[in-house]
Amino acid sequence: MSNTAGQVIRCRAAVAWEAGKPLAIEEVEVAPPQANEVRLKILFTSLCHTDVYFWEAKGQNPLFPRIYGHEAGGIVESVGEGVTDLKAGDHVLPVFTGECKDCAHCKSEESNMCDLLRINTDRGVMLNDGKSRFSIKGKPIYHFVGTSTFSEYTVVHVGCLAKINPSAPLDKVCVLSCGISTGLGATLNVAKPKKGSTVAVFGLGAVGLAAAEGARMSGASRIIGVDLNSSRFEEAKKFGVTEFVNPKEHKKPVQEVIAELTNGGVDRSIECTGNVEAMISAFECVHDGWGVAVLVGVPHKEAVFKTHPVNFLNERTLKGTFFGNYKPRTDIPSVVEKYMNKELELEKFITHEVPFSEINKAFEYMLKGEGLRCIINMEE
Amino acid sequence: MSNTAGQVIRCRAAVAWEAGKPLAIEEVEVAPPQANEVRLKILFTSLCHTDVYFWEAKGQNPLFPRIYGHEAGGIVESVGEGVTDLKAGDHVLPVFTGECKDCAHCKSEESNMCDLLRINTDRGVMLNDGKSRFSIKGKPIYHFVGTSTFSEYTVVHVGCLAKINPSAPLDKVCVLSCGISTGLGATLNVAKPKKGSTVAVFGLGAVGLAAAEGARMSGASRIIGVDLNSSRFEEAKKFGVTEFVNPKEHKKPVQEVIAELTNGGVDRSIECTGNVEAMISAFECVHDGWGVAVLVGVPHKEAVFKTHPVNFLNERTLKGTFFGNYKPRTDIPSVVEKYMNKELELEKFITHEVPFSEINKAFEYMLKGEGLRCIINMEE
Repeated sequence: MSNTAGQVIRCRAAVAWEAGKPLAIEEVEVAPPQANEVRLKILFTSLCHTDVYFWEAKGQNPLFPRIYGHEAGGIVESVGEGVTDLKAGDHVLPVFTGECKDCAHCKSEESNMCDLLRINTDRGVMLNDGKSRFSIKGKPIYHFVGTSTFSEYTVVHVGCLAKINPSAPLDKVCVLSCGISTGLGATLNVAKPKKGSTVAVFGLGAVGLAAAEGARMSGASRIIGVDLNSSRFEEAKKFGVTEFVNPKEHKKPVQEVIAELTNGGVDRSIECTGNVEAMISAFECVHDGWGVAVLVGVPHKEAVFKTHPVNFLNERTLKGTFFGNYKPRTDIPSVVEKYMNKELELEKFITHEVPFSEINKAFEYMLKGEGLRCIINMEE
Repeated sequence: MSNTAGQVIRCRAAVAWEAGKPLAIEEVEVAPPQANEVRLKILFTSLCHTDVYFWEAKGQNPLFPRIYGHEAGGIVESVGEGVTDLKAGDHVLPVFTGECKDCAHCKSEESNMCDLLRINTDRGVMLNDGKSRFSIKGKPIYHFVGTSTFSEYTVVHVGCLAKINPSAPLDKVCVLSCGISTGLGATLNVAKPKKGSTVAVFGLGAVGLAAAEGARMSGASRIIGVDLNSSRFEEAKKFGVTEFVNPKEHKKPVQEVIAELTNGGVDRSIECTGNVEAMISAFECVHDGWGVAVLVGVPHKEAVFKTHPVNFLNERTLKGTFFGNYKPRTDIPSVVEKYMNKELELEKFITHEVPFSEINKAFEYMLKGEGLRCIINMEE
């Protein structure tokens, strides 16, 4: 038992006081965990587009002041009542969506969309009492997706914590909390390409490259990267991408270009942009008879997916996935093991590193589209 | 070897001389089978909507005079050069689509959409020489989907013939040539409901009832039938349908009605009408996290399937199927065995029987929407 258990902890956190303004490093109070909650020390966190999207607060309900951050690795400091799966000292990855192990979704082998702990971007408080565990001089600071990892200490529901191999380096595996697992699982758990197959990946950001990495791990013989930015091809090669198509360089719809390149279509495609036109192309570029397209990118609220139904009748499949169909507690530890046994390469996703005091630099890299993942070292 | 082998056979056939006009029983000449072809004696044939659709020739290229018919059971009379799988006396079901066993589709475990022998409704001749095997006084009569079973003898590509158990009664198993296998396979091969699951079937014609039969065989606990004609519910109960929803009796979209009945949606749905609005409902009525919708009904050429992509992202799957994903030669013999071992009940699909001389009555029953399948006895 740590000597801080049951006490309020004072520590540094990066607080977003208003939309789009640089985060401010502040001293915050972190209350002890309540029932089914865990307080953890964050060692490394990384920045994901979703943090930036909600920090910019364009089109959503703004909720400020708030502590963002949801890709991270940490160590359990203390646990609340009823927590039996975890104890102080355990190494964990917090996840923005959870696994209560009790609802119809958690009991289904096919779903990871837990009824109790499914992502909720509007909620800024903990489920147990509807209040925040963070405050500054008594004034509450909102949580973000139940994780708020831009703080030296945070409180998370036990259902949103994956207990991992303690020998895994947290400065690497922290990226498995969100985007990398999302893309990887879309391929490994949903598209499931066979050895020797042809795979198209739409969008070569971190999620798309993780999808490509999954295709590489599956032994795909051709991995066709599709992106509007041709400069991404060079880096994508490291992730197994063998060919590149920039839709802007063709007069025909990209699905026709891909069908021509592949004698009728790819075996699998994975859409990681969220653009509805790319979704339609990703579906229509798979081969009839056996093609499977998987949607990963999150669309605009008003987007409409349109296609001729004969494209389905000709034995194409369209599926969507959320967090790569991984159940956070059950499955994420085994993804960490894939890294540990060198099957999955994580280093190539990590392009930047900054000390916590310079966290705003991570936002700048992302806004400029520079690199893939920036690791934020909480102890510097 | 039959004593007719190598000879032209003169026999009765029901010839469609023009669109929508009653068929005329005529004496036709049936030429011997050429390379990779088989001539067979049809004992029983049944009538399917597709025959009526192309006979009415609304919206397609009319091709007359033509011999329709594609659901049937027969016995091989003689075989052409290169045919080694079949010999005179074998019992067979002709199928409107084929399996060459050599193309990428046939070699794929997942597809049954043979490149060489895939259904072609525009072609009225045999592949080998681009000519018809049927004539009347030397004037050619066109084939239909490579089967033309409304004739006492017909010539079929060997790739479009399933060799079946000779003890199977052809007056029953002939219905497995098309519609019943299509609906059954959509459930058993594509939707794959688990024991105890909830299944919705859109359209309670023969194909939809075969889909329901597949759900019953799979041990579904609830089978919700959806049809605009409430009088169909009573008969549907025989096929395992436990509940009935008529969209016309509800103000809400039927997908919302079904979601309310099932605590969020069904586990599987199968669309057998071809109406694009029903397709959208069938997709949107499946449960998030694990729901799978399967499209079977053939849409209009201009139909557009539209949905919000978040319906996919929430882990729903949409697939289409063609002939229930059965490979005609490889798989249909085992469907006949399901009937032989009393797992599959075919008698309840057969509501009428007429002698060949009264084949036009079968068309009348179908046009009036009376019954499910009418067996035409070629020897009467």
